[in-house]
Amino acid sequence: MHNRLYFNMDNQKRDDIFQKIVLEQNRIGYYNLPNENINHILEFADNFDKKIETIAILGIGGSSLGSKAIYEFLKPTNKLIRKLLFFESTDPLNILSILNNINLDKTHFLVISKSGETIETISIFKYIFSQKPDSKNYTFITAKGSNLDKFAKDLGSKLFYLPDNVGGRFSVLSVVGLVPLALSGVNIKSLLVGANKINIAFFNKKRIYSQLIDKAIFYASNHERYRINCIFAYLESLKYFTEWFVQLWGESLGKKQRHSACNVGLTPIGLIGPKDQHSFLQLIMEGKRDKSVTFIKIKDFKSNLKVPNIKLSNLEALDIVNNIPFSKLINMQCNSVKEALLALKEIPIDEIVISKVDAKSIGELIYYYELLTSLIGELLDINTYNQDGVEAGKTILKGKLMKY
Amino acid sequence: MHNRLYFNMDNQKRDDIFQKIVLEQNRIGYYNLPNENINHILEFADNFDKKIETIAILGIGGSSLGSKAIYEFLKPTNKLIRKLLFFESTDPLNILSILNNINLDKTHFLVISKSGETIETISIFKYIFSQKPDSKNYTFITAKGSNLDKFAKDLGSKLFYLPDNVGGRFSVLSVVGLVPLALSGVNIKSLLVGANKINIAFFNKKRIYSQLIDKAIFYASNHERYRINCIFAYLESLKYFTEWFVQLWGESLGKKQRHSACNVGLTPIGLIGPKDQHSFLQLIMEGKRDKSVTFIKIKDFKSNLKVPNIKLSNLEALDIVNNIPFSKLINMQCNSVKEALLALKEIPIDEIVISKVDAKSIGELIYYYELLTSLIGELLDINTYNQDGVEAGKTILKGKLMKY
Repeated sequence: MHNRLYFNMDNQKRDDIFQKIVLEQNRIGYYNLPNENINHILEFADNFDKKIETIAILGIGGSSLGSKAIYEFLKPTNKLIRKLLFFESTDPLNILSILNNINLDKTHFLVISKSGETIETISIFKYIFSQKPDSKNYTFITAKGSNLDKFAKDLGSKLFYLPDNVGGRFSVLSVVGLVPLALSGVNIKSLLVGANKINIAFFNKKRIYSQLIDKAIFYASNHERYRINCIFAYLESLKYFTEWFVQLWGESLGKKQRHSACNVGLTPIGLIGPKDQHSFLQLIMEGKRDKSVTFIKIKDFKSNLKVPNIKLSNLEALDIVNNIPFSKLINMQCNSVKEALLALKEIPIDEIVISKVDAKSIGELIYYYELLTSLIGELLDINTYNQDGVEAGKTILKGKLMKY
Repeated sequence: MHNRLYFNMDNQKRDDIFQKIVLEQNRIGYYNLPNENINHILEFADNFDKKIETIAILGIGGSSLGSKAIYEFLKPTNKLIRKLLFFESTDPLNILSILNNINLDKTHFLVISKSGETIETISIFKYIFSQKPDSKNYTFITAKGSNLDKFAKDLGSKLFYLPDNVGGRFSVLSVVGLVPLALSGVNIKSLLVGANKINIAFFNKKRIYSQLIDKAIFYASNHERYRINCIFAYLESLKYFTEWFVQLWGESLGKKQRHSACNVGLTPIGLIGPKDQHSFLQLIMEGKRDKSVTFIKIKDFKSNLKVPNIKLSNLEALDIVNNIPFSKLINMQCNSVKEALLALKEIPIDEIVISKVDAKSIGELIYYYELLTSLIGELLDINTYNQDGVEAGKTILKGKLMKY
């Protein structure tokens, strides 16, 4: 993975912020995840019932977005052994439509909730449990000591615990992401190898270190001006990665400042090229200059698919695409948009190139964005790891439910 | 469909802007679409080859987002007769992964491009045509006189023409959306009835008129302050509607002003509840106060699915959800978040309630947003209907392709 920045930096703050992140390492759990022992997960997956074809995840937000991002990224090209499905909504039409498409006898359910009391997850679990009340159909992932932990023990189902101090949106490289991914056949070792590559490089001040830290400083110092940060990824299957990014960025960086109590926040936008060249791009080109853009490209698609050498009457002007590999075409499209934006000289651009569509590459990308988020959070003087803002709605809902 | 606004209005500009839209009606084609004669489309669909099971759309941006939005909205609950699939990317992994999942012998291809020279669409068409070079497998939708029109005539395939002065992102209620939707079994008559209901109400200054116009005035006058407009829809299958909205809003309203030449723009965000309560909501609650939120709710899900009356040991605190219909729960969640945001008194909120998940309701919603976009564009003093900003990238790409 390479990251090239097309904007200038003030490098003085580098050491200051680096030291803060080094200190945070002891307090915040996700920094250690690339080095965790995962043998128990690998063993669990190896010995898992071969007749199970589908793993259905009951989880929402941090409990589903990460595994979905990685699974969907790898699905088109990697031979996976089980399908992952996600129950993420209380929408009854959605619940029934997923249930109608699975064979309950060949499905295992992963119930994932850190607090153990997520209202959506437990409501859906109650419904599915009423249809299939058999403890061996369920595996639970929760914090040790939660009420869901106690329930799962009573039930006698398999249980995994989240490591300490790992928040939901930073949990994809813990059991929360690794258990479903291992069951689906993703190479979770490579995933962690990728993450650890970025981890080691950053903490040893090598390679990606300067881009990460300079980008964080630029984003944080310009947060009032460039308040919208777009990822423009030129690969359809990165769609769910952008949804994971939206949660990570929005929920981590939209906060009251620690000392000033000002409301600050950077707004994440996920775009997919070339599709969104025909949608959001116009707004970036001619709209308010309040957006930054990060292009993400795949270096090697490992695909020979070409536009065939066919001439179509009256469409001769388009013969220029003949014989071109689609992988080359899509990256040319990305470069063309990048050059058009650079020419405006008013939009901060950077480019991330990942080597190929494999577990290691997505591991790198995930960890890169986690570090970047932590750096910006610290520079914005906010608590990156809480989400107090969403409590008010939950309290109101509880009141309504009591009354009902 | 109802729309309730929770912010105060300056009503003086109403008549001024209304007159401008009335004038625009003669010039801009989409206003007439709800009243177009669609008999030729209905006839085409009625007589269509019964053994075709899949309609694959080759189109991008305005050529795909509208039909996808409506199809995906209706799919979970309406009995549709054919599957719609979308080739929207030059990503080779995506092209192959869609092709691997269809039976070419039971698939008909709709090639949709207004200009007739969309590089993505023609490249993909060349590839598919090389696999299946039979004119009767293709139907073309384009502007009369385009090079694609001439090609299709030479080929002898079925052709439909876009009406004059209908831009891609306003074309969903023309043949661009209606042909694929009719083939999939959507009731396109009801769709237009819904759209026309809003059309008539607006131009007769009835019902929705005042909300539409007041909302437009509010958004336009506050475009510097509330520069990000979120739709928060509490129905999973409205996901693709929000993508259609993002194109409509972003590409229409991100422009240089006609007279001042300033870059203005409103940034659209599509959110789905309750999922995004666990993601983007924190940023709305505690981040910068630069966002407006429109909640969209379904009045009648026509579903009896309930949380069963099950007590789970140690999870007794969550017995409050027992016996509640999921349709009630999801709308309670929406109301709770709405109340939490209203309590902040700094975020402009409105709420749209649509009656049910049917063609008529989505027709209303589509036309509501088209009118709203036109109103705001006029108030911002921009050309809502062009997209000059995307040309620069296209020109650079052509240069690169020539060189290759």
